[in-house]
Formats: sequence, structure tokens, C-alpha cells
Amino acid sequence: MSDAPLGRLRERLGEIADLRAAADLLHWDQEVNMPPKAAAGRGRQLATVAALAHRMFTDAEMGEFLKELQDGAHALAPDDAALVNVTAYDYVRATKLPETFVHTFAEETSKAYEAWVKAREISSFPAFQPHLETLLELLKKKADLLGYEGSPYNALLDEYERGMRIEQLEAIFAELAPKQAALVERLVNATHPPDTTWTRRDWPESRQWDLTVRILSDMGYDFEAGRQDKSVHPFTTSFGLHDVRVTTRFDAKDPFSAVSSSMHEGGHALYDQGFQEQDARTPLAEGASVGIHESQSRMWENMIGRSLPFWKHYRPLLNEFFPDVPPHVSAEDVYRTVNCVKPSLIRVEADECTYNLHVIMRFEIELALIEERMVVAEIPEVWSAKMKEYLGIAVPNDAQGCLQDIHWSLGSMGYFPSYALGNLYAAQIFERILEDIPDLWGRIESGRFYPLLHWLREHVHRHGRRKLATEMIRDITGAEPMCAPYLRYLETKYGELYGV
Amino acid sequence: MSDAPLGRLRERLGEIADLRAAADLLHWDQEVNMPPKAAAGRGRQLATVAALAHRMFTDAEMGEFLKELQDGAHALAPDDAALVNVTAYDYVRATKLPETFVHTFAEETSKAYEAWVKAREISSFPAFQPHLETLLELLKKKADLLGYEGSPYNALLDEYERGMRIEQLEAIFAELAPKQAALVERLVNATHPPDTTWTRRDWPESRQWDLTVRILSDMGYDFEAGRQDKSVHPFTTSFGLHDVRVTTRFDAKDPFSAVSSSMHEGGHALYDQGFQEQDARTPLAEGASVGIHESQSRMWENMIGRSLPFWKHYRPLLNEFFPDVPPHVSAEDVYRTVNCVKPSLIRVEADECTYNLHVIMRFEIELALIEERMVVAEIPEVWSAKMKEYLGIAVPNDAQGCLQDIHWSLGSMGYFPSYALGNLYAAQIFERILEDIPDLWGRIESGRFYPLLHWLREHVHRHGRRKLATEMIRDITGAEPMCAPYLRYLETKYGELYGV
Repeated sequence: MSDAPLGRLRERLGEIADLRAAADLLHWDQEVNMPPKAAAGRGRQLATVAALAHRMFTDAEMGEFLKELQDGAHALAPDDAALVNVTAYDYVRATKLPETFVHTFAEETSKAYEAWVKAREISSFPAFQPHLETLLELLKKKADLLGYEGSPYNALLDEYERGMRIEQLEAIFAELAPKQAALVERLVNATHPPDTTWTRRDWPESRQWDLTVRILSDMGYDFEAGRQDKSVHPFTTSFGLHDVRVTTRFDAKDPFSAVSSSMHEGGHALYDQGFQEQDARTPLAEGASVGIHESQSRMWENMIGRSLPFWKHYRPLLNEFFPDVPPHVSAEDVYRTVNCVKPSLIRVEADECTYNLHVIMRFEIELALIEERMVVAEIPEVWSAKMKEYLGIAVPNDAQGCLQDIHWSLGSMGYFPSYALGNLYAAQIFERILEDIPDLWGRIESGRFYPLLHWLREHVHRHGRRKLATEMIRDITGAEPMCAPYLRYLETKYGELYGV
Repeated sequence: MSDAPLGRLRERLGEIADLRAAADLLHWDQEVNMPPKAAAGRGRQLATVAALAHRMFTDAEMGEFLKELQDGAHALAPDDAALVNVTAYDYVRATKLPETFVHTFAEETSKAYEAWVKAREISSFPAFQPHLETLLELLKKKADLLGYEGSPYNALLDEYERGMRIEQLEAIFAELAPKQAALVERLVNATHPPDTTWTRRDWPESRQWDLTVRILSDMGYDFEAGRQDKSVHPFTTSFGLHDVRVTTRFDAKDPFSAVSSSMHEGGHALYDQGFQEQDARTPLAEGASVGIHESQSRMWENMIGRSLPFWKHYRPLLNEFFPDVPPHVSAEDVYRTVNCVKPSLIRVEADECTYNLHVIMRFEIELALIEERMVVAEIPEVWSAKMKEYLGIAVPNDAQGCLQDIHWSLGSMGYFPSYALGNLYAAQIFERILEDIPDLWGRIESGRFYPLLHWLREHVHRHGRRKLATEMIRDITGAEPMCAPYLRYLETKYGELYGV
């Protein structure tokens, strides 16, 4: 009878995972398939299913199973201990939020999201402002309910990057931001910008589709356990280890947009397809953190998908999909094309060199909001000032400025840093991969991605949530999260590309 | 405070509707999108969500709301009284089945379904037989748990055709079967079979797709509140009034197969899109019965979609989609083509004249099984005998015989009669429609389906589950369900077509 509570815990977690999968499918369908008039009804369905999953997870019985398992009376195998540990962490966090709070938060974010969509359409921050003010109060309340040391932002950060502290983050970004801004400035003033005139042709969507499917297959993405669809905002979603789906989008003038998007989501998807079968339907079958998840997407998208060896392999294949690409276009031409650096207004369209700067300014703003060092009404002004400072460009309107991202409208603060951390983690991990697989670039050049995937499966994917992000980085690299490897990577790559 | 229990009842029913919509989406996705390796996980998700919905619906609190509302202390408006009445009926039925029984039933049907898929592949009834024997025992147990008067089959029939009694059904079928069999025999021996040689050409799938979308739109199906997809077995599913989806399938040699399939599902979908907004997320927003639902699909598919006026309208349009259909092919040629009568092995491919015979023999078999007048092992033999008797054809193997239908593998007995009832209801209703809209055929010939849809909305759709099937038929026609109108319809139409 000693493993009875463990068995019941697993059973309950399985049911909750099933319910969350249903919610995820409702969401995936909303983005991919849903007819327009269904929006209101779908909102209610999502709210109901999410509330039920929350209710099941925070049920007192769950607490009893966990308490009994943590009491030490049960000798737990390491995997079981990890499951209990992770579940207990989530349980404590979830039960700190009363159901009335969760309900109010869901209602207000639903209203805020609708207001944000409309405000962005008319490019008017004031139309969104009162909603964001309400959400900010709720987020501060949430931090209080969850409890924290130091900044209340730490409480929010834990949701995405458990264990990361604001002090550590600020130190990393304080080093990263000026160095990356300085690099961007050098590149913008460089005399060797890449020639991209050869891309001025039609890139039929169906061929772009075929190319992305080919690349995803080559990467090792299992189409028998997933699928690709189109959506306005590309995303990855998992309904379980054997159903991990990606979406992408197409630009008729630029096939590399779809390639990047598919490889980015493919990186996420390989992670989700790489958890262990024994962890299925448990919280162990999740990424170590949002930042680690992002490290996988950014590694495939940028370090691999924007590398010269990658395009040495795919340049000849490009003509299979687009027969009229002229023979004189070399792998190097493609490589230069996909690595244009140009400060721009929109984060999700930003190149590798400018991307973190978009993220860091959002982090600084949301931190100041949570720490009550600024108010919501000041956002547009601060946004413009930071865009000028970090990227040297002027913000023409709110839609292309502070209204561009969905996150705040969903009540997400503490998420943005993960994007930058993802880049840093990726670079730290990648330096180690190059040590472990000295011929990695040779393999990539011959289209063999398996050694890389195998390494990632072994050192990152299979662990699921057994390790925190910082533990994983430490185990792989022997160091703390840091920005030096990423800066080395950028400076080497773009120094050569731009001759600076 | 007097409407408090009503408000709470509606709230609870809304949550249950949301959960069922999630289950329906899991199922729709399984048929339309799901990657193959996801099958096992999806099965668990469906089981979990269905069990949760059952648990919520059978919760004691639900019984208390209903009891309080039925006690008469609350003066209920007619719509509220209808809601309470329908919900109480479902509640009493659902609570008669203990959760352990529901769970066992779900598990065994899941196994039986898998066994059926494999058995059909290898065309071996013995591979399915033990599972069907288990399910039959469970179905008899279910009838006992539900309680019944007369035959235990009545208890099962109530799930699909509430209020219909086996005595009434047997009387109708006893009249229908021999008359319809005799008609088929006359037609098969007729000297004027239709010439369909003109259809021997390629019918590109993308054009078939466009044609079905055009027809669905013309019928009044709202693509802003639904969508069409492809699936192996066409079906309609509803996630709420504003998201009712159909699927269809294509035969490269025969565009009329897709037209029929889309119109059939379109008929179901128009019903589901036609419930009242105020009934959304309640059990009132459902069909009166499976038979009434089928009357809508069969009416659009056959009475409209296989009529001469319909093809007088669409014959010229056919060339918009298939430019090389020769001009000499007339509306009458198409009309004759889509109304070929030919006894065949497969129910879902059967023509209008033979269809009910397929259904009635299944009904006779399942009735005999439930009433213990035959055993499962005898099914193949009885199947062959009945196919010979009713349709005059020999059954070559189990796959094309008693293994062709999914229903029994899902633990559904009592469902088949609804298909035949649907045809009968459709004909009864249609006679009344022709009285109310004397120029109906003129409207159809000019492509105006709105008068028909409007009539159906008014007399059938908007009532949802406020009336039982028999009440609805009585209100519309002043008569009980009967087969005379359907036989009149068949004899007139096919007598003229075949000159018999």
C-alpha cells in the first residue's frame, strides 16, 4: 500500500494534464481554425476548462497526497521525488491564489485583451490604459499573495523563470545592453551592408510551405507526432508527447521569414517531443523554464538556421523549391541576406543583434511599473525614449510602439526577460556543444542535424522539469547564466559579416 | 432570490456545455487534424473530459437545484420550465448509471472500437465477436439500470428517440420493409436504367470543394459560424450555436458523392445553427431527437439535393466548376444520374430506395440480441440471410457485411432506427411544407432556399428540445409518425424516373 498516494497523485495529475490539453486544443483551434462568430463562446469554454483544471489542481486532496509523500514515510525513487517536488512547488503557488482572485484575474485579462486588440487597431494607448492599470494592480496583488523577497517582480518572474532573481537579471542586462547597443551602432554604420536585391522575386506560398516542411523533417521534428499549420502569430503547442504542433506564417516577398518562423517553433517542438515517455501527463513533461524553452527555439532559428554551413547545405536545395533562383546566388549570399542587421520598431521582426534590446526595454518598463517607480500613463513616453536610446529610432505611433505585444494584455509581466535569457542560454549551451561535437558544422553542412538533436535530447530535453534553468546551465557549462558567450557569438559572426 | 436556483442551474449547465464542447473539439480534431501517434493520448483526454462532464452533471447539487425548481415554489416562465423538464429527464437517466458502470462501459467500448478497426481490416467477425459480446452484456445491464416497460430495447431507444416505443417502431417497419423491398425489386427489373456514361471524366477535388462550398452557402449555412473540412467519415459537430462544423469527402470519379455528403451534413448543421440564442449552453440547444436531426440531413440531401428543380438550377452552374461537362448533358440527365437505384452492400453508400432496408435489418438484429432471441456469434449468418431477403444480394465477407458500421463498436444499440425514422419524418414534414409553400419547387429551381430554411427554422430548428419527436411531428402534420408519406414520395419519384 506504500505507493498508493503516489499512484493517486499520478492519476490526478494525468486527469489535469488531459484537461489542460483540452484547453490547449481550444486555444490552438482558436488561432488556426475557428470561425469568427465563435469567439465569444470560445472565450467562455477556455475560461471554464482553465478554471476546472485550476480547481482540480488546488483541491485539498492533492495537498494531502503531497503532504503524505513529502512526510518521508515513503521511500521515493529519484524520478518520483522529482515529480513530487515539482508538483508541490506548483501546488503551493497555485493555492496561494484564492479562486475569487483567479476568476477576477481571468475576467479582467479577457476584457483587457479585447481592449488591447481594439486599441492597437486604432493605435491609441489611452484606449488600453485603464485596463492595463487594473491588470497592474492585480499583478501587484498577485505578487503579494505569492510572497517574495526583495522586489515583488521576483514573485512574477518565478512563474516563467523559477529561481532567477531580479538582482542577477539586472546585473546581466546591465552588461549586455550597452555592449549590444554599441555593436548595433557599429554594424549600422558599416560600409558592407549585404546585397539582397536577388530576393526581389515571387516566392509562392505552397513552395515555401514545402521548404519549411522539409527543413522541419530534416531537423528531426516528427510529423507523425505533430503537424504544421498557418496562423497569424506563429506558436507551438503540445497536447502531449505525441502531439506537438507548430504554426508558421508566410511572406510572399521573403521565404526566409517562414523558414525562421518554422525553425523557431520547430526548436520549441523538438523540446516538447523530447520529454520522456514515463513523464507523460505529469508536470515533469514541461520545459525547465520559459528561458530554456526559448534557448531551444533561438538556437535552431539563429545559431543553426542563420549559419553559413546551414545555407551551404540548403542553397542547392533552394532551387528544388524555387527553380528560378539564379545560379550565381551563393550560399554566402543567402547567409548575408538572412543576417541583415537593421534596427526596427517591431520586436518579433527584429534581427539577432537588436532583439535583446527590445526585450530589455520592456523588462525595464514592467519592472518599474511593478516597483511603482513609474505609472502606466507614462509608458508611451518611456517607450519612445528607450527606443531612441537603445536602437536609435523614433516611434511613429502606439500600434508600432507600446501596443505591439500581446503579453501585458494577458496579464503577463515577468515573461519578457525569458526571451533574452533564451538567447544567452542558447549561446552558453552552444559553446559546450561545439566542444562535445567538434565537427558539428561539418555535420550541419551535410544536412545531418541528428548529432545536435541527440545532444539536446540528452542534456536538455529529457530532463523536463527535473532541473531549474540555472541548474541546467550550471550542469552543462559549469557556470552561472551570463552574457559573455552570446556577445562573443554576435561579435564574431557579425564582425566577419559586416567587416567591423 | 426566487430565481437563484435557476440562475445556478443555468450557470452549471453552461460549464457542462463548455466541457462537452471541449470533448467535441477533441473528437473533431481527432477525425480532421490529429497526427497518428497521438491516438492513445487523445483517447485518454476524451475519456477524462467526458467523465468530468458526467460527474459535474450528476452532482448531487444539480439534483437539488432541479428538485427545488420542480417543487412548484418557483413560478417558471415556459422556456425555463422546458429547460428544467429536459434537464431533469437527462439527470434522472444519467444518475441511474453509477460512475463505475460508466467507466467500465467507456473502457470496454474503447477496446471494442480498436478491435473493430482491426477486425474490419482483416475482415474477420470472430476477431470482434468477444468484444461485442461484452458490450451486449453491458448494454443489457444498462437497460436494467435505466429501467423500462416491455422490451429492454425501449430503454436504449430513449437515448436517441425519447418517447418512441418498440411496439410503434415495429408496426411502422413491418409496413415499410416489404413495400420498400417490393419497390426496389420493380426498379431493379425496370427497362429504363439511367445512362451515366457522361460522368466518366476527371472531377478535380479542388473544384468539387468549391462546388460544395457554393451549395452550402446557397443553402444558408453560415461559414462565419462554421467551416467545412475533409474527413474519412463525414460528420457534423457543434461547439455552440456559432461554431457548427461539417466535414465531407471526395470521390475523384463522382462529384455527386461530395455534394450529397456536404448537403447531408449541411442539413444537420443548419439545424444546429438554428437554435435560439437564449438556449445557448443549455440542453435545449439540441435536436429534438436523433431521428428529427436525421430528417433535416436527409431532406436536404435527398428531397432537395436529388430533385429535378435543384439540378435545373445547378446544371448551368456545374460548368463554372467543371468547364468540360458537355452541353448536351441536361438537368434531367444529372437528375437521373444522382437517383440510380442499385442494391449494394454498404449502408452509407446506399441510394434512397434501398437505404431503409439496410437500417431495418440492423434494427432487427440488435433488437433480437437485446431481447436474447439470438446470440452475437450468429450475426454474420443472419446478416447474409437478411441482405438476401431484403436486397437480393450476397455478402462476400464480414468487412462489407456485419463489420461495416461503427455503431456497435461504440456500444450504440438503439441508434439505427433513427436513420429510417429520419427519412419518414422528412417525408411527413415535407408534405406539409409543400402545402405551406406551394411554389417551393419554383423557388428551388431559381436557387432560393431561404423559404425552406425559414420554414424549418420556424417549425423545427428553433424549438430545440422543447418538443419530443412525436410531438413535433404531431404539431406539424397532425399525425403520428408513419411511413405512408415516405412510400408515396419514393413511389412517385422513382415510378416516374424508372417508368414503372
